[in-house]
Amino acid sequence: MEITSVTERKSLLETLAPGKRTRLRRLLFEFGPGNGTLMLLPIDQGIEHGPRDFFPNPASKDPEYQFRLAAEAGYSAIACQIGLATKYYPDYAGQVPLILKVNGKTDIPSSDNALSTCNATAEDAVRLGADAVGYTLYVGSPRQDTDLEQLRRVRQDCDRFGMPLIVWAYPRGAALDAKGGQTTFYAIDYAARMAMEMGADVVKLNLPKIDPEKDKLTQPPYNEMEISQEDAVRAVVESAGRSLVVLSGGSKIDDGHLLQQTRYIMEAGRSGVIYGRNVWQRE
Amino acid sequence: MEITSVTERKSLLETLAPGKRTRLRRLLFEFGPGNGTLMLLPIDQGIEHGPRDFFPNPASKDPEYQFRLAAEAGYSAIACQIGLATKYYPDYAGQVPLILKVNGKTDIPSSDNALSTCNATAEDAVRLGADAVGYTLYVGSPRQDTDLEQLRRVRQDCDRFGMPLIVWAYPRGAALDAKGGQTTFYAIDYAARMAMEMGADVVKLNLPKIDPEKDKLTQPPYNEMEISQEDAVRAVVESAGRSLVVLSGGSKIDDGHLLQQTRYIMEAGRSGVIYGRNVWQRE
Amino acid sequence: MEITSVTERKSLLETLAPGKRTRLRRLLFEFGPGNGTLMLLPIDQGIEHGPRDFFPNPASKDPEYQFRLAAEAGYSAIACQIGLATKYYPDYAGQVPLILKVNGKTDIPSSDNALSTCNATAEDAVRLGADAVGYTLYVGSPRQDTDLEQLRRVRQDCDRFGMPLIVWAYPRGAALDAKGGQTTFYAIDYAARMAMEMGADVVKLNLPKIDPEKDKLTQPPYNEMEISQEDAVRAVVESAGRSLVVLSGGSKIDDGHLLQQTRYIMEAGRSGVIYGRNVWQRE
Amino acid sequence: MEITSVTERKSLLETLAPGKRTRLRRLLFEFGPGNGTLMLLPIDQGIEHGPRDFFPNPASKDPEYQFRLAAEAGYSAIACQIGLATKYYPDYAGQVPLILKVNGKTDIPSSDNALSTCNATAEDAVRLGADAVGYTLYVGSPRQDTDLEQLRRVRQDCDRFGMPLIVWAYPRGAALDAKGGQTTFYAIDYAARMAMEMGADVVKLNLPKIDPEKDKLTQPPYNEMEISQEDAVRAVVESAGRSLVVLSGGSKIDDGHLLQQTRYIMEAGRSGVIYGRNVWQRE
Amino acid sequence: MEITSVTERKSLLETLAPGKRTRLRRLLFEFGPGNGTLMLLPIDQGIEHGPRDFFPNPASKDPEYQFRLAAEAGYSAIACQIGLATKYYPDYAGQVPLILKVNGKTDIPSSDNALSTCNATAEDAVRLGADAVGYTLYVGSPRQDTDLEQLRRVRQDCDRFGMPLIVWAYPRGAALDAKGGQTTFYAIDYAARMAMEMGADVVKLNLPKIDPEKDKLTQPPYNEMEISQEDAVRAVVESAGRSLVVLSGGSKIDDGHLLQQTRYIMEAGRSGVIYGRNVWQRE
Repeated sequence: MEITSVTERKSLLETLAPGKRTRLRRLLFEFGPGNGTLMLLPIDQGIEHGPRDFFPNPASKDPEYQFRLAAEAGYSAIACQIGLATKYYPDYAGQVPLILKVNGKTDIPSSDNALSTCNATAEDAVRLGADAVGYTLYVGSPRQDTDLEQLRRVRQDCDRFGMPLIVWAYPRGAALDAKGGQTTFYAIDYAARMAMEMGADVVKLNLPKIDPEKDKLTQPPYNEMEISQEDAVRAVVESAGRSLVVLSGGSKIDDGHLLQQTRYIMEAGRSGVIYGRNVWQRE
Repeated sequence: MEITSVTERKSLLETLAPGKRTRLRRLLFEFGPGNGTLMLLPIDQGIEHGPRDFFPNPASKDPEYQFRLAAEAGYSAIACQIGLATKYYPDYAGQVPLILKVNGKTDIPSSDNALSTCNATAEDAVRLGADAVGYTLYVGSPRQDTDLEQLRRVRQDCDRFGMPLIVWAYPRGAALDAKGGQTTFYAIDYAARMAMEMGADVVKLNLPKIDPEKDKLTQPPYNEMEISQEDAVRAVVESAGRSLVVLSGGSKIDDGHLLQQTRYIMEAGRSGVIYGRNVWQRE
Repeated sequence: MEITSVTERKSLLETLAPGKRTRLRRLLFEFGPGNGTLMLLPIDQGIEHGPRDFFPNPASKDPEYQFRLAAEAGYSAIACQIGLATKYYPDYAGQVPLILKVNGKTDIPSSDNALSTCNATAEDAVRLGADAVGYTLYVGSPRQDTDLEQLRRVRQDCDRFGMPLIVWAYPRGAALDAKGGQTTFYAIDYAARMAMEMGADVVKLNLPKIDPEKDKLTQPPYNEMEISQEDAVRAVVESAGRSLVVLSGGSKIDDGHLLQQTRYIMEAGRSGVIYGRNVWQRE
Repeated sequence: MEITSVTERKSLLETLAPGKRTRLRRLLFEFGPGNGTLMLLPIDQGIEHGPRDFFPNPASKDPEYQFRLAAEAGYSAIACQIGLATKYYPDYAGQVPLILKVNGKTDIPSSDNALSTCNATAEDAVRLGADAVGYTLYVGSPRQDTDLEQLRRVRQDCDRFGMPLIVWAYPRGAALDAKGGQTTFYAIDYAARMAMEMGADVVKLNLPKIDPEKDKLTQPPYNEMEISQEDAVRAVVESAGRSLVVLSGGSKIDDGHLLQQTRYIMEAGRSGVIYGRNVWQRE
Repeated sequence: MEITSVTERKSLLETLAPGKRTRLRRLLFEFGPGNGTLMLLPIDQGIEHGPRDFFPNPASKDPEYQFRLAAEAGYSAIACQIGLATKYYPDYAGQVPLILKVNGKTDIPSSDNALSTCNATAEDAVRLGADAVGYTLYVGSPRQDTDLEQLRRVRQDCDRFGMPLIVWAYPRGAALDAKGGQTTFYAIDYAARMAMEMGADVVKLNLPKIDPEKDKLTQPPYNEMEISQEDAVRAVVESAGRSLVVLSGGSKIDDGHLLQQTRYIMEAGRSGVIYGRNVWQRE
C-alpha cells in the first residue's frame, strides 16, 4: 500500500517554531513512510477500553509486541501513555519516535460528561525523549471548561519545550449526543476547527459518517446539507487549517473500506493516516 | 463609510499606564480608521459556533482570508484565539495589530451555566506581539464565581505587562434568561458597568434591543421604562464610564440597520464599532 | 450633623501592627470627621445591583461625581472595586483615602448559595496606594467553605502588607433564610462575631431589625428574646470585640430614621457609620 | 479537683520530633496542672454556633474574659481562631500557651456535608507564638476528600515547623447519621483511629454515649456489642494509639456527670481533659 | 509455607531507574522471603474500615503489635499511613522496609463516587526512610478525573525521588457496580492494565472471582467467556505487563483457600503475595 505525501505539507512545517519543526520533521520524513505521511500506531485501548480489545489477537496484549510492530513495520511513531513509555519504550528508543499521550480515562463511567485527565506532562515527554505530545480533547463535553484549561497548560508547555502538540479531537458528551452524536459531519467539522484554534499542530479525527437521520439533529446548515463522505472529509481537513490532519475510522473495518478511507484522506491533502486496532487486530 | 472619532477619547488614553497607552494608541490612531475609532475584526466563530458560520461565504473559512481582509481593509485590529494567532498571524505581523482572545468555548452544551475558559494567557499575548488581550465575561452567569476569578488573573497579568484589556461583556445564563434575556437594555447596561468595574480598558457590547415583552421581566426601574434605542445606547456607553466602548449587532443584519447602528454608536461618543460576521458574510 | 468619637477607639488602634495602625489612623483621624469616626462612601452598587441604583440621582452614575463627593464632603474614605480604583482614583489620590473592595458579584443569579469572588488582591491595594482592603463575607452561605478560604488569603496578605482589613459581614444564603433571614438580631450578631474571629480589623454590618415573626425562626435564645433595636445594636457591637464596627441601614431611608440609627451606632460606642445610597441618592 | 498524670505520657513525648516535643512539653508540664494533664479552654463557639452560647454567662462573650480565665485559672492552653489570637492573645503572651485553631465554619448550613475550612495556617501559628495547631476533622463526611487534603497541608506544615498537631476528631455528615450518628462508640472509635492515622499528636474526642437504639445502626461488631461507657472510653483511647487523647462531653452537663467523665478519662490513661462551655457557662 | 521466586523478576528490576531499583531490590531480595517474592503486611484497616476489623484479634489493634509482627515474621515490608509511619515505624527502622500509603478514606460515605485522598506525599516517604510509596486507585470511579490527576503528582514525585510506586488497583464506583461489580475478571483485568499504564512499578490486585451471574453484566467478550480462576489470574498478571503483581483475596478466608490462591499467584509468575487481615486476624 503506497501512500503519497503532499508537498504543501513542507510549508506547514515552516510555520512551526524550531523545536516543533525538528521533531515533527522526524516523524514525517525520517520515520514511517518518510514522504510526509504520518502513520501512527496508538496503543491506548488498554486504558480507554481495558484489555478487552486485545482478545481478537492475544499477542497484541503484550506491549512488547506492539512496540516491536511499530519499529519493524515502519510506523512514523507509536503513541502511548506514561506507563508503557517508561517500561517498554527504552528498548526501542531511537528506533521509532514516541508520542506521549498525556491524558486518558477508563470507559466505565458514562461519557455524558466526558473528561480525559492528564496523567503525565510535556516535561515527562521531554524526559523520555518523545517527539510529540498527544492530548485527547472531548469537543462539546459539558466539562469543556476543565478540558480546555488542562489543554492550555499542555499547550503552553509544548510551546515552551518546542514539542509538537497532537490533539485527538473527539466530539463527546450528552449535549453533543442530542445534536446527532459523535460521527456526524457537523461534529467532526467542529472538532477539527476547535483543535486547530486551541493550538494543535496535528489534529487526529475520526472519519465523518453521512447518516441522514443523525444529520437532521445537527445545527444548520449541516442539518439540511447533502454531501458525500468524500466532500465531508475534504471540508473537515480544510477546517483544521494549517494543522496537519490525521484521520482514522475508529473501529475495525474491512480491507476495502480501509483503502477507500485512505484514498479520501490522501486526496483531501495535508493529511496522514492513523492505524490502531485496524492493524494489530488482524495480525 | 466615514466614522468620526471623538476627541475625548484622547483623554481616556491618558488615564492608562504607559504600556497600555502605547498599545491602545496603536489600535486607535496608527491602524484602522486612525481617528480614534476602533474597528475590529473578530474571528472566533470557529470555536464559538463551529464552522457553520462560514458556509454563507466559504472563503471566510480560511483564516488566511480573514487575516488578509483585516490587513487590507484597514481594520484597527484582528481578534482571534491562540491557534490562529500562532499559525496565521506571523505572516501579518506588523501589518495589522493582534488582539489575543484568551478564552472561549463551544456552543454545544447549554449556556445556562455559561463559562468561557482560558485557553491562553496575557503572557502568550506578549510573546506573540499582540497589542491587546480579549476576554469574554458572561455577566450574570451562575458560574460568575469562576469567571471573575479567571478574569482577575488575566487583568492582573495585563496590568503587569501593560497590555490593554478588552472585555467582551455578554449577559448570559439561566438566571438572566428569567430576567428578560441577553439583549435588554437592563442586561446590556449591567454588563457595561460590570466590565468597567472589573478593570476593562475597552468594553465590547451588543446593541441593546427595546422589546416591551422582555423588558417587563427586568429589574426596576428598567421594567417600566420607556426609552428609545438611541437613548439606551447612550446610557450604556455612560455606564461603561472611562472604558472605551465597542458595540456590534451580534448577528447578520441588513445594510440599512447596520448604518443606523453605527450612527447611534458614534453619537453616543467614546465608542468604536466592531464588525464580525456582518463584514465577511457579505464578502 | 456632628458625630463624636469614642476615646477607646484609640486603644483599639494600639492593638494593630504598625502598617495597619498607620493606615487606619489616617482614615480615623486625618480624613473624614477626623475624630475617630469612620464615614465611608462605598460605590459598589454598580456591580452588586447594576446601574439601576443610579436612576434616582442620575449624576451618581458617573464615578467622577462620587469621587468628587467623597473628597469634597469630607468622607473618611471611598470604597470601590478595581475598575474605578484604577480609572478614577488617581485624580483624587491623596485627597481622600481609598478602600479597595477586592470581591464582588452581580445579583442576577439567586443568592441561595451566595459567594462574592475576588477580582483583586491586597497587592493591588498596595500598588494603588489604598489605605485598606474591603472584603464581603457571606456569613452562613452554603459556600462558606470557598468564602473562608478566599478570605484567609486576603487576610494573610493584609497581615503581610500591614493593610487594614474591613469585612462587610452579611448573613446570606438559603439556610440562613430558613432561620429568619438576613436582618435579624441573630443573623447580624453572628456575622459580627464571625468577621471578628476571621481577623477583621473593621466590621461593616447592617443594622439589625427587630421583627417578631422572623425572630421566631432564629436559634435559641434569640427566638424568644425581647430586645429593643438599641440594645441589639449594642450587643452586636460587643460581639465584634476589638474590631471597629461600621453600621448602615442598607437601603434608602428617611432622614429621621437615619439620624436615629446614627445615634444608636454612636451610643453603642466603638463604631463608625457608613453612608452609601443614603447619601448620593438624595444629592 | 485533682487530676493525676500518667507516667507513660512522658514516653509519648519522646516519640515526637524536637520542636513538637518542646512545645507539647510546655503544655503538659509547664502550664496547667503541670503533671502531664492537658486542660484546654477552647473558645470557638463564637464561630461554630454564633454568640448564642454566651448568653447564659454574658461575661463570657468578651474574649478578654476568657483569656484572663485561661491565664488565671491555670489552663494548659487556650484554643482559638485567628481573630482572637491576633487581637487578644498578645496581652497574655507567655502567660498561657496558645493553640491556634486553623479551621472553622458556622453552623447555619446543614452539616450533612460538613467541612471546616482553613482560615489560618501553621505559619500563622508560628508567627503568633502558638505552641500547637488545632484542626477540626469531620470523620466520615461526604467531603472527607477536601478535608483530608486540607489536613495533609496543615500536617506537613506542622512537621516542617515542629508544631504539635491537635485534631478535633468529630464524626459528622449524612452517611454517618444513617449509621447511628455522632455519639456512638462506633463513631468515636473510628474518629480516634482516623485522627491518629492522619498524623495527630493529640486527639480531641467527645465521650462516646451508649445508646442501644443508635448502636443497632452501626457497623458490626459494634451493633451487637454490650459495653459500658467506661470500657468504651478505654477502647477509644486505645484506638488513638500513641496520640494523646483529650476528651470532653461536648455540651453543658451537671457537676456529678462532669466528675464521672473526668474519672473515666483519667482511668483510661494517656488522656487529658478539655473544658469548654462547662467551665465558663457556670462562671 | 515456601514461596518460590520467579527468575524473570530480576529482569523487571532492570527496567527501573536506579533509585527505584535499589529500593525495590531491598524489598524483594533483602527482606521477606528474599527470593524475589513480595510478602506485604498492610495496616490500613484502621482508616479504611475503622477499628472494627481489630475485634477478632484484639492484639492487632495496637500498631506496635503489627510492626513487631512484620519485623519478626519476616515480611518484605509493612504498608501504612502517615500517622503510624511517624509514631511507630522509627522503632523498627532498618528492621523491616516501610511502604508509605499516601492516600486513604473512611468507608462511611457510599463508595458510589469513591476517591481516596492523599494525606501524605512521596516527599514524606523519603523523609521517613520508606522504600516505596503506596497509592490506592479506584479504577472506573466517576471521580477518576481527580484520582488520575492525584496519581500523576504522586507518580511524578516517585520518578523524581527514585521511589517505587505500588498501586492498589481496585475497581470501584456506581458505574462499575452496574457492570458486574468489583470482583469480576473483567474488572480486575481492567484494573491491572490501568495501573500499569499509569506508571505503577508494582500492582496490588484482588483475586478475580468467577461468577457467571456477575460476568454476564460485564463488557464483551468477558460476558460470554468461560474461564477458570487459574486462567483468569494468569491473564490478569499478563495485563499488568512489566509491573510486578501482588495479589490477595481481600477478606478473611480459610486456610485451604488461602493456599490455593497462593499457588495460583505463584504459578502465574512475576507475582508476590499480600497478606493483610488473613494474617493478623488468626494470630
